[in-house]
Amino acid sequence: MPAASDLTDQIAVPTRRQLLGMIGTMGGAAAMYQAMTALGHAAETQFTGPPVLSGARPGASVVVLGAGLAGLAAALELSRAGYSVQVLEYQDRAGGRNYSVRGGDRIVEVGGATQTCEFAPGNYINPGPWRIPHHHRTLLHYCKTLGVELEPFIQNNHNGLIHRSNAFGGQPQRYKELAVDFKGHVSELLGKALNDGALDGKVSAEDKEKLLVAMREWGVLDRNMAFTPSIALSGQRGYDIPPGGGLDPAPTASTPNGLADVLSSNVWTQMGFYFNYVMQTTMFQPKGGMDQIAAGFMRQIGAMVRLNTRVAKIAQDASGVTVDWTDNATGQTGQTKADWCVCTIPPPVLSQIELQASDALLAAVRAVPMNGQLKIGLEMRRRFWEEDYAIYGGHSFTDQAISQLSYPNDKFFQDGPAVLLGAFANGAGALQLTGMTPAERIEVALDQGSVFHPAEYRREFISGVSVPWSRMPWIQGCTSRWTDASRAQHYTNLVTMDGRVVLAGEHATYYGGWMEGSLLSALNAIEQLHQRATAA
Amino acid sequence: MPAASDLTDQIAVPTRRQLLGMIGTMGGAAAMYQAMTALGHAAETQFTGPPVLSGARPGASVVVLGAGLAGLAAALELSRAGYSVQVLEYQDRAGGRNYSVRGGDRIVEVGGATQTCEFAPGNYINPGPWRIPHHHRTLLHYCKTLGVELEPFIQNNHNGLIHRSNAFGGQPQRYKELAVDFKGHVSELLGKALNDGALDGKVSAEDKEKLLVAMREWGVLDRNMAFTPSIALSGQRGYDIPPGGGLDPAPTASTPNGLADVLSSNVWTQMGFYFNYVMQTTMFQPKGGMDQIAAGFMRQIGAMVRLNTRVAKIAQDASGVTVDWTDNATGQTGQTKADWCVCTIPPPVLSQIELQASDALLAAVRAVPMNGQLKIGLEMRRRFWEEDYAIYGGHSFTDQAISQLSYPNDKFFQDGPAVLLGAFANGAGALQLTGMTPAERIEVALDQGSVFHPAEYRREFISGVSVPWSRMPWIQGCTSRWTDASRAQHYTNLVTMDGRVVLAGEHATYYGGWMEGSLLSALNAIEQLHQRATAA
Repeated sequence: MPAASDLTDQIAVPTRRQLLGMIGTMGGAAAMYQAMTALGHAAETQFTGPPVLSGARPGASVVVLGAGLAGLAAALELSRAGYSVQVLEYQDRAGGRNYSVRGGDRIVEVGGATQTCEFAPGNYINPGPWRIPHHHRTLLHYCKTLGVELEPFIQNNHNGLIHRSNAFGGQPQRYKELAVDFKGHVSELLGKALNDGALDGKVSAEDKEKLLVAMREWGVLDRNMAFTPSIALSGQRGYDIPPGGGLDPAPTASTPNGLADVLSSNVWTQMGFYFNYVMQTTMFQPKGGMDQIAAGFMRQIGAMVRLNTRVAKIAQDASGVTVDWTDNATGQTGQTKADWCVCTIPPPVLSQIELQASDALLAAVRAVPMNGQLKIGLEMRRRFWEEDYAIYGGHSFTDQAISQLSYPNDKFFQDGPAVLLGAFANGAGALQLTGMTPAERIEVALDQGSVFHPAEYRREFISGVSVPWSRMPWIQGCTSRWTDASRAQHYTNLVTMDGRVVLAGEHATYYGGWMEGSLLSALNAIEQLHQRATAA
Repeated sequence: MPAASDLTDQIAVPTRRQLLGMIGTMGGAAAMYQAMTALGHAAETQFTGPPVLSGARPGASVVVLGAGLAGLAAALELSRAGYSVQVLEYQDRAGGRNYSVRGGDRIVEVGGATQTCEFAPGNYINPGPWRIPHHHRTLLHYCKTLGVELEPFIQNNHNGLIHRSNAFGGQPQRYKELAVDFKGHVSELLGKALNDGALDGKVSAEDKEKLLVAMREWGVLDRNMAFTPSIALSGQRGYDIPPGGGLDPAPTASTPNGLADVLSSNVWTQMGFYFNYVMQTTMFQPKGGMDQIAAGFMRQIGAMVRLNTRVAKIAQDASGVTVDWTDNATGQTGQTKADWCVCTIPPPVLSQIELQASDALLAAVRAVPMNGQLKIGLEMRRRFWEEDYAIYGGHSFTDQAISQLSYPNDKFFQDGPAVLLGAFANGAGALQLTGMTPAERIEVALDQGSVFHPAEYRREFISGVSVPWSRMPWIQGCTSRWTDASRAQHYTNLVTMDGRVVLAGEHATYYGGWMEGSLLSALNAIEQLHQRATAA
């Protein structure tokens, strides 16, 4: 192997591909793979294990505000490092948005609307986060070490349905048929342009030949590069008569949809959705409900958490932090003093609390944009989506306010009642549904969801609950959605430790709306805190 | 609503789409969905429940040859209908290719090569069928009614690897990166052809506008319709620096691969593979091994099955069927007489047995083409594919003889040894590996599989087993692969009841290589038998 300087001489400005080729030649596959990672090919996370916080001063104390995942992770790691930790939580449970609604649970909205969930024992809906990407290694680390069992979340279900009001006369279509037809038409068109020489100035002769092969195979085109019905194509989009056995009739080909129909479905939106890095398979969910993650933390540090505690004021000076609070249950007021504070209170609530901090931090807290999604859980008497439609988990999408149905990813094939996600509304749909009474929301969800399962939807319905996040008093929003402008102006101010107080949570991250972000934010916050505390 | 005759007058030759639109207008969504199904949109199976075999004559008897899934299903349904059933099975277990290899199991090949599996308790490999599509309703029916618990089979894993010897210097790439780059380049090229007017004669102005939107969104192109690096694109293919929290650095964009590199990977092959109707999500596997399906049948009808029984001759005349057999364990010979016979013995074996049947049937038995796939299971000390590569289930593909690795779909995140599918060889690769000794096969599998996991593959290896199907003495092949010509000449002869004997099994079906085919074949066969028996 030549010396490094030789290598440097040989390749003035190598492409990444050239560099990889050289490393492969010289160092073999193992060296190559390490290099691939180093060159950014496989970078998946900024998590390399929980921070090592050594040398904490004996007796140093931290008050953590909020027992969502960020607060729980901060408390766990700080207490392991030797800090004396107290967590104050507004609600009567830990977890925050890490939350599962079960039979008997009450949901009280800003304005007073109250629901009591009536689901059967064992059934639940996850109104907040509900799926875990395989590359969210921080979250997976805590699930593993806290004993939270995970099961697959069926994200991409080819047999789900797509509905758009102005496509196919408003009738839902199977995703598989639309997606196969989309790639077929795209292949046929690109094949024609290539064969007509329309792209000769853009692709080499060699790439053109390969592209033609790719289009024919990927699009399942016929020998004339046309997208036409065939048994081979039906082997992707499904048959009119599927294959049988014995003297059953032979399979017959289905007829693909025309280009105009396929385009009217906007199916590429879903095809792209499934390619989103945070939506890619393999995904997971905790067995028994998302709140099992919070429960895992609480098994470790439950004794440090004071529930039902509303923070009224956060003061700090050279000697420490003082938090004034009121007990929601008893009305008792109190103060908690500590050397340092990790504050995970969501910005819409934090902006209404007296906080002694720099103007820059206070401005940042007020500037964080929050979305107010809404979810609805509908309990049905039986799994008609499985039994009658062969849909096992995954989603059906619509352009109505409910946005999508999602089918439960556990207890497949079981008898008895099961809970559908009957709405996951964003934007205008969320505003519209949030503005209704709980009963009205259920009615709209049943009406709109019936487009997918008309014969069964109302007949099998038992009860439903809705969670409009912008009306949840303890958060008044769901996910932060930084714009480029707001991030440029405020983000660094928001996440930089301010005196004795450091903020953490989903909003204090580049990973808005994901539990992974909350945890990464918490780990970074406690690293800042520890550095400050040990330097002091 | 107008009378039917009015409707008929209005639409002389409606397209399916026009017809659906009319039905939707007149009858609402429920009528539409029923019509969609009737028009072939949602046809998924020829299974509508097990056959109703009423009126069997008291005392009528059937001998079933072979206790694979076809034989077991035939025996179960015939015995439920009142027939007296005896099953003869060559092996010392029921199930046939419905088979799981576990620690302690012996594998003896034609030629004498013998392996003993050394996997840890609880670990197994499914050397035959291993995944169940959501639309295989016959199989799902029996799993449900026989109490066989199913769990998801992770088919499409975006984080799996793709290796081709002549692409990327032989270094594996993540599927997600290649697939995202493929659709990006295709979108850019088709967008350019459209903008250049090269397809104006082929697509309408309206479709052209929609296609341009589709290409920009689906391909994640920039505002100039070019496929360039961006944070948005990295939101699909992954980042160089992924999003973090707090003061972690901001995410940075990854650089897509060039067109020539992407084409060298043939990634469209895998993209198309995942769209195969029989490979589409959601898929399942039985908890604890594929052989749990056979075990479910045996709980019902185990008492009817005689194991270790080699069939020597199948004779029939006007009065009945006589089967001569030898007990493999004791050498004892015997005869079983019955009124009727369902024969599921695989064609390569059946063609070597004396069978009294028409020349047409005998010619058909000799004509069935069989493939001889080969699988290898490798037990590893730990789940390095999960821990080090974030690969949870699914596949990595290669153009080497082993063809693919597949990662276990159960017990995710657990510590301790786990079993990889280290080869699933077809065609030339299967011939090559089958021709080796068991030890040589493992060596090749370790060598070729190391391309994906170079640092870990040999270091973590404990033991392996191979199952070369063409050398399994009881079947001498794996899956039937009818050609159009052989099917036209022989298929009907093979599956039509011949006197008192009717054949069934995966080969007697349009669904070669799938358990669903075996079952559909068995149900059709017993319907023929029952019709003959009750008419006699």
